[in-house]
Amino acid sequence: MVDQSTIAAISTSPGVGAIAIIRLSGENAIRIADKIFKSPKGGKVLVEQPANTVHFGHIIFNEEIIDEVIVTIFKVPHSFTGENSVEIACHGSVFIQQKILEILVESGARLALPGEFTQRAFLNGKMDLSQAEAVADVIASSNAAAHKLAINQMRGGFSKEINDLRKQLLHFTAMVELELDFAEEEVEFADRTALRNLTEKIEILLRNLKDSFQLGNAIKNGIPVAIIGETNVGKSTLLNALLNEDKAIVSEIHGTTRDVIEDVINIKGNAFRFFDTAGIRDTEDYIENLGIERSYSKLEQATVVLLVVDTENPYPIIKGRIDKIRERIVQDQTLIIVANKIDSGLNETIQQLEVLDLTDNEKVVFIAAKQKQNLEELIDFMTAAINFDLANQQDVIVTNARHFEILKNAHEAILRVLNGLDSGITGDFLAQDIRECLHYLGEITGEISSDEVLGHIFKSFCIGK
Amino acid sequence: MVDQSTIAAISTSPGVGAIAIIRLSGENAIRIADKIFKSPKGGKVLVEQPANTVHFGHIIFNEEIIDEVIVTIFKVPHSFTGENSVEIACHGSVFIQQKILEILVESGARLALPGEFTQRAFLNGKMDLSQAEAVADVIASSNAAAHKLAINQMRGGFSKEINDLRKQLLHFTAMVELELDFAEEEVEFADRTALRNLTEKIEILLRNLKDSFQLGNAIKNGIPVAIIGETNVGKSTLLNALLNEDKAIVSEIHGTTRDVIEDVINIKGNAFRFFDTAGIRDTEDYIENLGIERSYSKLEQATVVLLVVDTENPYPIIKGRIDKIRERIVQDQTLIIVANKIDSGLNETIQQLEVLDLTDNEKVVFIAAKQKQNLEELIDFMTAAINFDLANQQDVIVTNARHFEILKNAHEAILRVLNGLDSGITGDFLAQDIRECLHYLGEITGEISSDEVLGHIFKSFCIGK
Repeated sequence: MVDQSTIAAISTSPGVGAIAIIRLSGENAIRIADKIFKSPKGGKVLVEQPANTVHFGHIIFNEEIIDEVIVTIFKVPHSFTGENSVEIACHGSVFIQQKILEILVESGARLALPGEFTQRAFLNGKMDLSQAEAVADVIASSNAAAHKLAINQMRGGFSKEINDLRKQLLHFTAMVELELDFAEEEVEFADRTALRNLTEKIEILLRNLKDSFQLGNAIKNGIPVAIIGETNVGKSTLLNALLNEDKAIVSEIHGTTRDVIEDVINIKGNAFRFFDTAGIRDTEDYIENLGIERSYSKLEQATVVLLVVDTENPYPIIKGRIDKIRERIVQDQTLIIVANKIDSGLNETIQQLEVLDLTDNEKVVFIAAKQKQNLEELIDFMTAAINFDLANQQDVIVTNARHFEILKNAHEAILRVLNGLDSGITGDFLAQDIRECLHYLGEITGEISSDEVLGHIFKSFCIGK
Repeated sequence: MVDQSTIAAISTSPGVGAIAIIRLSGENAIRIADKIFKSPKGGKVLVEQPANTVHFGHIIFNEEIIDEVIVTIFKVPHSFTGENSVEIACHGSVFIQQKILEILVESGARLALPGEFTQRAFLNGKMDLSQAEAVADVIASSNAAAHKLAINQMRGGFSKEINDLRKQLLHFTAMVELELDFAEEEVEFADRTALRNLTEKIEILLRNLKDSFQLGNAIKNGIPVAIIGETNVGKSTLLNALLNEDKAIVSEIHGTTRDVIEDVINIKGNAFRFFDTAGIRDTEDYIENLGIERSYSKLEQATVVLLVVDTENPYPIIKGRIDKIRERIVQDQTLIIVANKIDSGLNETIQQLEVLDLTDNEKVVFIAAKQKQNLEELIDFMTAAINFDLANQQDVIVTNARHFEILKNAHEAILRVLNGLDSGITGDFLAQDIRECLHYLGEITGEISSDEVLGHIFKSFCIGK
């Protein structure tokens, strides 16, 4: 089933570094490395060396020394891919990296596809599919929370959860099928109450997993934060102050920011995905109106909404805007009213905002974005708004959109079982829905997979992994 | 003499990759790695493992698994630095790389300075100073020729040349000092003719080395090519066609390119450093005149001058420009007249250019830069203009500005010896100049060095090397 060719790729980050790693995997990996490698002391050739050893020598091609390298040998099945593998650590010049890759191809290897090393590890049974997918997440994770989830999934935490679920489902099937065996005797072997309790338990497990995706996705991709407000109140300035760089255009002209700009920044170990939005104001500019429409749609997607108001304006105007936004805030969202420009704001406005009546999911914070005043308090409010403590989060959290889709299907199947029990359908129909549920879970771990699915999963990997 | 602390750095190219390498070196390198590394099978700790072996396991900190890694152990003196060393191959997320580095620092390592691994290799006698310097050149080399020179220097080719020179100088000193021993007897032991022959031989060797720097520098940094011509003849278009990208601004407005743009591209294994220059025309724009001035100054620095002319213009205008540039071309320069826009040019102009009288260091090539027509012939002319064949270049070529400065000093000292021989000064004066010459050569290989010199050399290295 696994392609027997030997694949090669540069596995370190592209560009110049002190060291770069070129990776080879496949039946002939060590033989191919041997063709171009020469130890200065003579000594044994690589194929005669034991596994898990490193060797200093030269990469030589057409009698020319290309580089001094360290070669590491791994042997089947004790390697990442489960195949014979070689890692060549060369000097990190782009020229040398490319040259060695070229020479390897001329010597019998072929260029690896994205994620092909990990795909082989999966196909050779070194990890299940959800673990393989986690490898990409581990590499991509840019904050402590996402990293922790990805490492847990790569190490099989999620697989264990799925396998526990499978066990429960198999127990259910066993009970139902026992009943089917005695069908002629019209005995209800499986106590309907016990069966219902078990189904409810499985339904809760599946629902929790499915529901954890919202959090998982927020951790992986950043908690969505919309920055909204009238034009010129300092939304872009605030974003820039938070980003500490200048990605958004800040100018004195009203309506500068027509496009929704997205930026992810890590604050206190959490990733926030900021949507800077077009200012909301009455305008006849068609394009700008489109931008405002988009602002509102982004508002719906946000977990935290920062409504920026300019304290230089009279309070009634600001209050009007706050009320308008409040109408759009739903239960799970946190609205933070960011009273900006307090250095130059109207006393009256600031005083009124200070005594504004707030609901449980509302906060007011007074800042001066340009002077970076009081941003710390804003950040504290934002962090508090997420309201999760990963350290105390015992359950597995789903972070992968593919898993989420599958879990939704599995959950629907188990709901059909529950309905079936209520309407008193026969055991064989119940068993069918359970088998469907089992099938879905198999897709997560890769026990059931197609080339198409695998192709789709691994094409998003980087080359060399 | 060598700092005994254990240093740590990320040694692969910065950014996200499949794999990243974190390097540790120093007496406690393996002990520090042991503190944070745990093998899943239990088994021996790292300090008990043999040298040159690799080990799979986890980096653990505060009971949390940071990553699954492969750790390679090197032991004193058989490592790059000559010290105990550890290389940790982790997943290439920036978060993980930074985290592991942090943990290593908390466990007793300190962050390495730029080039500190190579500096330790030098201080521990694993390589001489010119070899250490070549390590940086190997990493920076972006074309076949520069790479070949750097690898040769790193492998000690240049050191051998310097040592041969030292031997000759010591032979000279021996002859002179023998004479000094018998000074009272007024015997001229060292035959003045033999002495003169030897000095001349040394002088030639030093001169050749010194003179090779022009070529070496061109190979290392790119052969300087000036693109010059009137505004709007298509200089930027030509550069872009050669670069196959759009770094220069190309527009219909005369005088767009005010700044000299430099770009290095590799053509047929040679690096060319292109200077796109402001168009030469009569203008009263002060800023633009400054640009034109700069164009002329760049002309002097070029090995190859590409004079781009627009064949849509009448021949006399073009001839006038050619004659003006010819005045500025010196002996070692090659002038290539690039007749552009041949798709829309005047027949009369093209015909006249075809029969233009040319000197040995002049060429005419007919192209259409916009359509990328006939660029191949232009490239052939440029390549021919460099007039060196590295494969047949037997001698060592100096590429390092520091070495060049030292060789100039050494050469001046040997010229003083020659003059001394001519004017008949005594042996002890001759010996003094020879000792000065020996001193300089020692600075190249690092037998004579100061902290200041070392600091200056290694600070230009990347961190992790």
